Amino acid sequence: MMSDSPTRVVVAGASGYAGALAAELVWGHPQLELAAATSRTEAGTRLDRLYPRYRCPIELKELDLALLEDVEAAIVAYPHGAATPVVAEMRGMGLTVVDLSADFRLVDAAIYERWYAPHGEPELLDNAVYGLTELDRDRIRTADLVANPGCYPTAALLALAPLAERGLLGSAIVDAKSGVSGAGRGAGERVSMVNLAENSMAYSVDGHRHLPEIEQELKRLTGVVPDVVFVPHLLPIDQGLLASCYVDLAEPVADVGALYAERYAGDSFVDVTEVPPGVREVRDTNLCRIHAAPLGEDRAVVFAAIDNLWKGAAGQAVQNLNLMLGLDEAEGLV
Amino acid sequence: MMSDSPTRVVVAGASGYAGALAAELVWGHPQLELAAATSRTEAGTRLDRLYPRYRCPIELKELDLALLEDVEAAIVAYPHGAATPVVAEMRGMGLTVVDLSADFRLVDAAIYERWYAPHGEPELLDNAVYGLTELDRDRIRTADLVANPGCYPTAALLALAPLAERGLLGSAIVDAKSGVSGAGRGAGERVSMVNLAENSMAYSVDGHRHLPEIEQELKRLTGVVPDVVFVPHLLPIDQGLLASCYVDLAEPVADVGALYAERYAGDSFVDVTEVPPGVREVRDTNLCRIHAAPLGEDRAVVFAAIDNLWKGAAGQAVQNLNLMLGLDEAEGLV
Amino acid sequence: MMSDSPTRVVVAGASGYAGALAAELVWGHPQLELAAATSRTEAGTRLDRLYPRYRCPIELKELDLALLEDVEAAIVAYPHGAATPVVAEMRGMGLTVVDLSADFRLVDAAIYERWYAPHGEPELLDNAVYGLTELDRDRIRTADLVANPGCYPTAALLALAPLAERGLLGSAIVDAKSGVSGAGRGAGERVSMVNLAENSMAYSVDGHRHLPEIEQELKRLTGVVPDVVFVPHLLPIDQGLLASCYVDLAEPVADVGALYAERYAGDSFVDVTEVPPGVREVRDTNLCRIHAAPLGEDRAVVFAAIDNLWKGAAGQAVQNLNLMLGLDEAEGLV
Amino acid sequence: MMSDSPTRVVVAGASGYAGALAAELVWGHPQLELAAATSRTEAGTRLDRLYPRYRCPIELKELDLALLEDVEAAIVAYPHGAATPVVAEMRGMGLTVVDLSADFRLVDAAIYERWYAPHGEPELLDNAVYGLTELDRDRIRTADLVANPGCYPTAALLALAPLAERGLLGSAIVDAKSGVSGAGRGAGERVSMVNLAENSMAYSVDGHRHLPEIEQELKRLTGVVPDVVFVPHLLPIDQGLLASCYVDLAEPVADVGALYAERYAGDSFVDVTEVPPGVREVRDTNLCRIHAAPLGEDRAVVFAAIDNLWKGAAGQAVQNLNLMLGLDEAEGLV
Repeated sequence: MMSDSPTRVVVAGASGYAGALAAELVWGHPQLELAAATSRTEAGTRLDRLYPRYRCPIELKELDLALLEDVEAAIVAYPHGAATPVVAEMRGMGLTVVDLSADFRLVDAAIYERWYAPHGEPELLDNAVYGLTELDRDRIRTADLVANPGCYPTAALLALAPLAERGLLGSAIVDAKSGVSGAGRGAGERVSMVNLAENSMAYSVDGHRHLPEIEQELKRLTGVVPDVVFVPHLLPIDQGLLASCYVDLAEPVADVGALYAERYAGDSFVDVTEVPPGVREVRDTNLCRIHAAPLGEDRAVVFAAIDNLWKGAAGQAVQNLNLMLGLDEAEGLV
Repeated sequence: MMSDSPTRVVVAGASGYAGALAAELVWGHPQLELAAATSRTEAGTRLDRLYPRYRCPIELKELDLALLEDVEAAIVAYPHGAATPVVAEMRGMGLTVVDLSADFRLVDAAIYERWYAPHGEPELLDNAVYGLTELDRDRIRTADLVANPGCYPTAALLALAPLAERGLLGSAIVDAKSGVSGAGRGAGERVSMVNLAENSMAYSVDGHRHLPEIEQELKRLTGVVPDVVFVPHLLPIDQGLLASCYVDLAEPVADVGALYAERYAGDSFVDVTEVPPGVREVRDTNLCRIHAAPLGEDRAVVFAAIDNLWKGAAGQAVQNLNLMLGLDEAEGLV
Repeated sequence: MMSDSPTRVVVAGASGYAGALAAELVWGHPQLELAAATSRTEAGTRLDRLYPRYRCPIELKELDLALLEDVEAAIVAYPHGAATPVVAEMRGMGLTVVDLSADFRLVDAAIYERWYAPHGEPELLDNAVYGLTELDRDRIRTADLVANPGCYPTAALLALAPLAERGLLGSAIVDAKSGVSGAGRGAGERVSMVNLAENSMAYSVDGHRHLPEIEQELKRLTGVVPDVVFVPHLLPIDQGLLASCYVDLAEPVADVGALYAERYAGDSFVDVTEVPPGVREVRDTNLCRIHAAPLGEDRAVVFAAIDNLWKGAAGQAVQNLNLMLGLDEAEGLV
Repeated sequence: MMSDSPTRVVVAGASGYAGALAAELVWGHPQLELAAATSRTEAGTRLDRLYPRYRCPIELKELDLALLEDVEAAIVAYPHGAATPVVAEMRGMGLTVVDLSADFRLVDAAIYERWYAPHGEPELLDNAVYGLTELDRDRIRTADLVANPGCYPTAALLALAPLAERGLLGSAIVDAKSGVSGAGRGAGERVSMVNLAENSMAYSVDGHRHLPEIEQELKRLTGVVPDVVFVPHLLPIDQGLLASCYVDLAEPVADVGALYAERYAGDSFVDVTEVPPGVREVRDTNLCRIHAAPLGEDRAVVFAAIDNLWKGAAGQAVQNLNLMLGLDEAEGLV
């Protein structure tokens, strides 16, 4: 689907951190037009007043159906559960949709229910494609509904997939560290500056909702349920996510660095680096920087650094939307 | 060795981060007297001017032998290699010494040479006691020379020892995160605010000098060389260190939390907590906070949080010196 | 009022930042006993669980009259307006009260109403003493109700009073910078880490509620309404407040530094320093560090650094309570 | 001077913070070609390895004359004093030069000598133009040598010029706050993370080298030596500078906000805002955000926020070079 005039896109839920960035990116995109950006709580506020670091001057509106009438695509940044009916409505109107919530990430409604709640539109799950761009471009290109991956799964899967695809992935420990914007705008006191300044700690040790995503997608690559431990930590920063992945290799790998460099040679948003990446290097970009190194004969460690709001959320959403609309996947991104 | 008048202590190398805190702690200690604090580079400067957060008004001096004449004990905070001759001299004069460098931590001079350089006084190694207080109080009490553990080994060993002591430790992955003061005062541009602000990354992935300490001490507990991976990371903070330790258990443990609570029930500086600790909680204290949780049947995760300058350096040095001098180990500490 | 057994103190509103610290300080105070700590929103939670950096294990309770029956004193840390009826009740029961809100700081109810709301108990204002310790010890010692100063007025007044007392204060510009804990626990998104990380900005430029306090107290010293501009800024830190005060001198001062050193020579919590103080130096202490320097003939600049939660709130509250109870003002403080 | 092929530019001193960003900006500039980037200390290192946040893969080289032979322009980012001979050489070869040091900012060599050292090439001062773009576009367009302003003067002058130009500027107090990158790469321990984390303080209270620049340029606008106090402070952040300027007005101004909006209506890199700007809003951009507000009848406060490395250094250097080369001043900038 290519056209001369820009594709009109609505961003629903644009007052949250990921939605606001999605609106900013669509607004600055050379081949998209930001038809509207919506918010229940901040309707009437200009986006660049709500987030002075952004430049998009659009006024946030309440979402109503009239807004969607001459729109071709949508990025939905609603909370988990709340996204389902909105996405269903949009899909019913024929819109191309990228959904940032977890609502369409898990293909098995029973697993969704276990980690979240009963699913409101389970029949839509069959049509949703899990949108980790570098792993599934062909399916994303033809999808009408893409479930944008969680921030942690994006980093963890980009780190683990090259081994999983080759049958080299034994078990994996994913020790992940994220800036506080990953917790969302309404996260409250737990991630306040007073609690996080000069602090860092693990959380959700007994099971984080991003684990089933990681397991599902690794199983798609290997055919078997993977043995993965995933423990998230908070960093006292705003944006940035680092996944340190300790892998028991199924068999020795001669040059794990070369394996990664080769795997991602054609991916403009994945850099395989010679030293462990810092999250600052990828801040405000859609890049994932990966470094893989052997740990003796039988293990390797793989570090993946992303900006949780970009490659981990809004950036990847635009990257996916680009593919769905027949555009270059890098259009409008840095 | 107890006495009514305070024990006179010199702190050598008091312009660095750990040495300065050691001087501050000795200065405020009710049963110690700070006889002198020395520095080659900052002689003539008052400690509380060099570090305005400290209150000790002593003027730093060049170290010379006259300073040591009526002194009973010393804390040495010299760089690795440089500590050896100073400690040898002090021991020759009969001083009780806690050394903060790595020079006396590794009992095997060959291992020291592999990670650092040829050892200048290998015969002194036999008399040195590795000073992880909670693991070795009896040996520390009677030692004349204590090698104060590195910051990472302190956290990692406190996290792993309870399992190792019971033969429950299979392999372990230690993903450690430290504030930049751990790199020392002369660390330069790599840990500058411009490079670390809003940043975090792994380093020394191919082998950090603290690994042989961890291996040596675990082997002392278990009799076998442990299978440990240790990867340090930098956090964009000043003080604080968190070790996240992923353990393959040698056999299932019914209640890993209870095991830790019991192990450290008598240790005033180790808190076993019900939730993963944040490094901020232990800042400016000698505390180590530990949380242990099962990861399925066969694994556990143990988090240990310390202030790298306190329990990871100067605080533990005073704790050890207290024991060596027959004092309550908590004297002068918080 | 001195006694052998510790004075029983209740801290009301102990889930907020200042109230929690007040409870922690009272709990650790050698001559006070923390009879209870209350919170409407966090009743049932232990203080050291709500704030893991604190050690006080008391369980927060709903405030009811029974709690106050065998209590001699209270520190109240309620929001402005909400404090008035609680303080009135406590005073009716004969309790010695330090109130952290603004409710009793302004002696003129009309001024209070202009900046806040109609005052609920204007007759209590006559008995309240404005508790900037170093300026009013005698009145505080005999007071039953002390209105603890705001954080900004504490720093600004300590900076300006030595000149005002000598008739040397012409006009003053107070450019103040505060960490985000000053905004309180409920401050929300404006002071979130996402909005404040790597950020700093002025706010309340058209008039901050702390201005009338500064004006009132300077007028008490000089007899005339002062010409003061006060503009607060946010710093991307947790605790710490720096007031940079630019003063037009009424007449030349030969040695402004000496003037300050002399004025505060007897004040254990005010340090007059030779270089501009950093807020980190006074963190987690009740200290105010002040540096005064000439700016040509007719002007001076005075910097005052405090920890907004200590000298700017809970620390000064305990300092004042100590005086009211006949104790050494430094008891229980650092 | 316009051409179809890109103008070849060398950046000398590209290992420092400002020089590195200048090289990165020139490298990504659509109408410039980065012919070479030089460094004495880091020759042989790739720029994107030295600063992983940058993308320019050029290898830094030692500066020699051969490098300059087919080059049309240069940005020089040498330390004060060291820049003079390099700039003289380049000018002798006919290069268009923007110099980031202070060496050509002060038109009076005697004033330069008082604040820095004797000037090595005083005759070059006559040809140098002080490059605060928005104040002097016409002179910059025709200049061969532009002295790029200091970071503090950039913010202070953009804040004060609209009043000065209209004869409305009485005296001014400039309370400025800067991130630590302003101190440069070699600033060392004073701006280390250990000293700056959670800290903020004034410095150079007895006179900062940026003051004579501010005075010189205001005098150019008004004809008289201005009465300006300038006190810089450090913020615990990387990039960002906020100048809070308190102005005694020469006469009342009806609508100071409107005055600023009108003055900068045509300047794409100056935003006049309705609320005080935060430094985060302009980070990694060449923007200056300004907010002006009345303080009673006779005073106003003006806040100017810039990124000290962009508009305060390398960004403005490119903006000026664009003008000197006949390009759109915004080319290659954001």
